[in-house]
Amino acid sequence: MENKKEIIAGIIIIGNEVLSGRTKDINTSTIALWLNSLGIEVKEVRVIPDVEKIIIDNVNEFRKKFNYTFTTGGIGPTHDDITAESITKAFNLEYGFHKEAFSILENYYKPGEFTEGRQKMAKMPTSAKLILNPSSGAPGFYVENVFCLPGVPSILKSMLGGLNNILVGGDPVLSKTLNLRTVESEIAKSLTEVQNQNNDVEIGSYPFFRAGKLGVSIVLRSTNKKKIDKCNDQILKFVNANDIEILREI
Amino acid sequence: MENKKEIIAGIIIIGNEVLSGRTKDINTSTIALWLNSLGIEVKEVRVIPDVEKIIIDNVNEFRKKFNYTFTTGGIGPTHDDITAESITKAFNLEYGFHKEAFSILENYYKPGEFTEGRQKMAKMPTSAKLILNPSSGAPGFYVENVFCLPGVPSILKSMLGGLNNILVGGDPVLSKTLNLRTVESEIAKSLTEVQNQNNDVEIGSYPFFRAGKLGVSIVLRSTNKKKIDKCNDQILKFVNANDIEILREI
Repeated sequence: MENKKEIIAGIIIIGNEVLSGRTKDINTSTIALWLNSLGIEVKEVRVIPDVEKIIIDNVNEFRKKFNYTFTTGGIGPTHDDITAESITKAFNLEYGFHKEAFSILENYYKPGEFTEGRQKMAKMPTSAKLILNPSSGAPGFYVENVFCLPGVPSILKSMLGGLNNILVGGDPVLSKTLNLRTVESEIAKSLTEVQNQNNDVEIGSYPFFRAGKLGVSIVLRSTNKKKIDKCNDQILKFVNANDIEILREI
Repeated sequence: MENKKEIIAGIIIIGNEVLSGRTKDINTSTIALWLNSLGIEVKEVRVIPDVEKIIIDNVNEFRKKFNYTFTTGGIGPTHDDITAESITKAFNLEYGFHKEAFSILENYYKPGEFTEGRQKMAKMPTSAKLILNPSSGAPGFYVENVFCLPGVPSILKSMLGGLNNILVGGDPVLSKTLNLRTVESEIAKSLTEVQNQNNDVEIGSYPFFRAGKLGVSIVLRSTNKKKIDKCNDQILKFVNANDIEILREI
């Protein structure tokens, strides 16, 4: 939209528990909001099963397609945790104990408690760089532009800050939301006119139903604050002309 | 896993609001749980932006790859609702007013209120079949094996029942969950042994952290109840032998 190079990312959620519907994915939102603040836009998310070939194929497709790829899930100690080995194969690297990860985990556990089961969490591409884990010891890792994080939301969230200085972002995408007491069909025509006059601003329109009442959230997104403000003024014009109520909260 | 043909599905979530992190997707879980009950397994989910070419490419890939494809989002009346037109192009059909949809919407609104903005919701492949909407009038539609649903969770949910007799499923996938007060690394080895002896049961291991306490949910999934029970017995054996507490609720 601007004359600058976009920095874009993809997310691969690895986990049968999301595909079965048992678990609702909230990691996408956590990662996307954090990336936005660094000027990186998520362009695609995939949820895939714990199957080696599928992980390898998707990682190899994403790492070429996007500046950054994030995977979540499958780096724990159990038999269904196959992300680290799959990533190793995707990059054709050596899989084994990562010295630094092994030593972090060895120090984290009490003497005698760093069991064989736990040692598996130190296995990854031996040349990977680590993503430190302030919550529970076991680190994530990255190889080139692919960053592998755990699936547990609170742990994942605690690890992102450690990557702020490693990722190179663009201008942050700014957004402004207007919540209106209306229905989409009432404003569709006016909104189309505003969008046609403001190609550099992405205008999203999202109906909501809360506490029995309906409304529409209009979300303006751009890297340029002035353009968002201009677009916002044009929307307020038709909102006021049609006596549409603006909601402070929804 | 069984000697029967699997019936599989893919879900395409169309919406910049999920990619930006603003909205957490819960439609995947709703659709997946409902499909499970019909004996249909979700094998892949993609979240993609509101971009025509991307929608067309993904729909054309999915409809060949899976027995059923579901899309959510982008069928409302605003400028960013481009799913119906994109699906029409993916199937190379005619796009225009769908007679039955037009008449449903005409009857739904009071005289004079079926405005130009609202009429757009009757535009789709003219030969599509409708998915009726008991919540808010505007129908979804399907073409061959591609089912297009709205993005608003409550409305989407209310429309699924109408498809129960249209989809052809396999044997329902049954599941059993055991919640244990332990950590994954304590049970990883025993669990691997059980998985190796029970190839027809998918054993998932999911750590959780709730109210400051940690535990692991073991989820057994198969179309065969006897095989789940056998697997469950083997797990209980090592759980009891190691004095691991079983939690009724988490």
